[in-house]
Amino acid sequence: MFEKYWQQMGDKATVVIPGWQHISYFSDVTNICWFLEPKFAKEVVRVHKAVGNAVTEDRHIVVGTGSSQLYLAALFALSAHDLPEPVSVVSEAPFYSSYPSMTDCLKSGLYKWMGDARSFNKDGAYIELVTSPNNPDGHIRRSVVNKSEGILVHDLAYYWPQYTPISSPADHDLMLFTVSKSTGHAGMRIGWALVKDREIARRMTEFIELNTIGVSKDSQLRAAKILEVISDSSERAGSSEEGESFFEFSYHLMSERWKLLREAVEHSGSFSLPEFHPGFCTFLNRVSEPQPAFAWMKCERDIEDCESFLQGHKIFTRGGEHFGFGTEYVRISMLDRDDNFHLLVKRLSAIHI
Amino acid sequence: MFEKYWQQMGDKATVVIPGWQHISYFSDVTNICWFLEPKFAKEVVRVHKAVGNAVTEDRHIVVGTGSSQLYLAALFALSAHDLPEPVSVVSEAPFYSSYPSMTDCLKSGLYKWMGDARSFNKDGAYIELVTSPNNPDGHIRRSVVNKSEGILVHDLAYYWPQYTPISSPADHDLMLFTVSKSTGHAGMRIGWALVKDREIARRMTEFIELNTIGVSKDSQLRAAKILEVISDSSERAGSSEEGESFFEFSYHLMSERWKLLREAVEHSGSFSLPEFHPGFCTFLNRVSEPQPAFAWMKCERDIEDCESFLQGHKIFTRGGEHFGFGTEYVRISMLDRDDNFHLLVKRLSAIHI
Repeated sequence: MFEKYWQQMGDKATVVIPGWQHISYFSDVTNICWFLEPKFAKEVVRVHKAVGNAVTEDRHIVVGTGSSQLYLAALFALSAHDLPEPVSVVSEAPFYSSYPSMTDCLKSGLYKWMGDARSFNKDGAYIELVTSPNNPDGHIRRSVVNKSEGILVHDLAYYWPQYTPISSPADHDLMLFTVSKSTGHAGMRIGWALVKDREIARRMTEFIELNTIGVSKDSQLRAAKILEVISDSSERAGSSEEGESFFEFSYHLMSERWKLLREAVEHSGSFSLPEFHPGFCTFLNRVSEPQPAFAWMKCERDIEDCESFLQGHKIFTRGGEHFGFGTEYVRISMLDRDDNFHLLVKRLSAIHI
Repeated sequence: MFEKYWQQMGDKATVVIPGWQHISYFSDVTNICWFLEPKFAKEVVRVHKAVGNAVTEDRHIVVGTGSSQLYLAALFALSAHDLPEPVSVVSEAPFYSSYPSMTDCLKSGLYKWMGDARSFNKDGAYIELVTSPNNPDGHIRRSVVNKSEGILVHDLAYYWPQYTPISSPADHDLMLFTVSKSTGHAGMRIGWALVKDREIARRMTEFIELNTIGVSKDSQLRAAKILEVISDSSERAGSSEEGESFFEFSYHLMSERWKLLREAVEHSGSFSLPEFHPGFCTFLNRVSEPQPAFAWMKCERDIEDCESFLQGHKIFTRGGEHFGFGTEYVRISMLDRDDNFHLLVKRLSAIHI
């Protein structure tokens, strides 16, 4: 959906890679994460500084093949390899629907998915995933398990100005980000982790070594270029001579879509959406609205299986049960292509029960 | 080490990716492997046809973040998820040193490394990895476990004309290839599997979905371009007007290096190397020499720990014990940069015990 912005940017966002360059496995052997392209690392630091959404000082950067791989790398790095039992992995419901299957797909003896963090009451070590703003419901999250042996992983894929007001730079031990949500370039498969502890960063790197022997250099270079354009455009913001900043552009796009969705839902009268409070965004330098990448919609009027109900109206969503929640909820993507999104709101607004 | 060839190719091998292109997760939703770029798939088929090293008819192509990820995807796809015990994974020693750690790093309940295929005598299902030509010793391999419940994975990373005579197109159920060894572009992290069974291809795709939600599009596009140049150069071979084919170039490079290494070993008198038989190469259309990507060198004269011994002479290798073999052996990379390789042979030839 951010395609138009990148078309406007033209050659500025184009990457050119000759056949003889960037051939080797290695990017920087002096770095713990030896396959991290220095140019990409530089642009990660720069974009966080420009946006003000995360502390990068005294952090190790680990690059991953999307943040999925970094999530798995974090589980590997944070679990004790000499314990007889796997460490518990929990997250408050509704949680990202892929967490359970990603965690348990190999039946690992190191970690095990234990579901909703709210009902978790096992003793011993655990890893709590805090996705904020949350996928699927868009709310700001904090850890909810209040025990001493917990380790937190913060998935901040959506902590960008187009989705939520940036209140202050996030400052956690292990934070995950991805270009697919920040810039829209999902096909690059590039994510990064900001990691406080050197040994954890080393073990995450070790996992990625065992998993894929590093991360595509081509995509790291392209991601560096894209982030560079975003930082350039953000630093120019206000001087407006060269067009909007990326985040102004994408904020307005999200804003328009949420307006259309809320109108459709109101018109239909059969559904409800979460309400959010506006907040001051230090990046936009004004009060801004939360407008998540997903809409967590509830079917009202006794519709028990909202996903099937909507499917009957040719609206394709993901049912609440995948997110550890009730089937009266569904997740709607707000990031689809224009045509699809407009078809969605049209069909939704026509439903009257 | 193939850098020079790619420099000679100039712009022909350059890839240009504008900021607005190849943004989405999806490449081809009609394909089982929905993140496979059609252009890359086309060039994979073409290069195998040009080289004659693998059958691609009636095969599904699954792309991976290097062949490492495809190896893990194969284990996931080939193991039964409802069995109480993990399936055994074996390979004849000396085997690729990363197989044990890649297989066991997550203590999976699906599969378990059981070491040397020669001494494997457990009943029930097993997966046998056949690396041919073999890493580290360069020999042509066949499966060695002779039981009914085995499934074979053929790692054919080195089955290319610069390393070994191509005798006939490989025609196995599950074959793995990678650009890092065929073209030298390790930093791309692109591999591919040729898979006979549709369901196995689907499950491998599922694993990659859970692991990294697809594979870098940028690298797939770049790999397509590089393979295109290789196929072009191979089809032109003989007409020689536009310079050597890639495989002629790399064959001569490998040949020169093996000559230098054998001279150094002979001069030193303290080591021995495997001997290979020349064979007819259907691609080069003449008898060619096996000249593996690694040299599997033995320390003679009662040196028990060859790796440490060589380290004392500033020669860095990987000891035989990592490959399930004796410490009197080491693996030497034949693919290092020119400077490093020449330093290696110089230092080696100066050792006299």
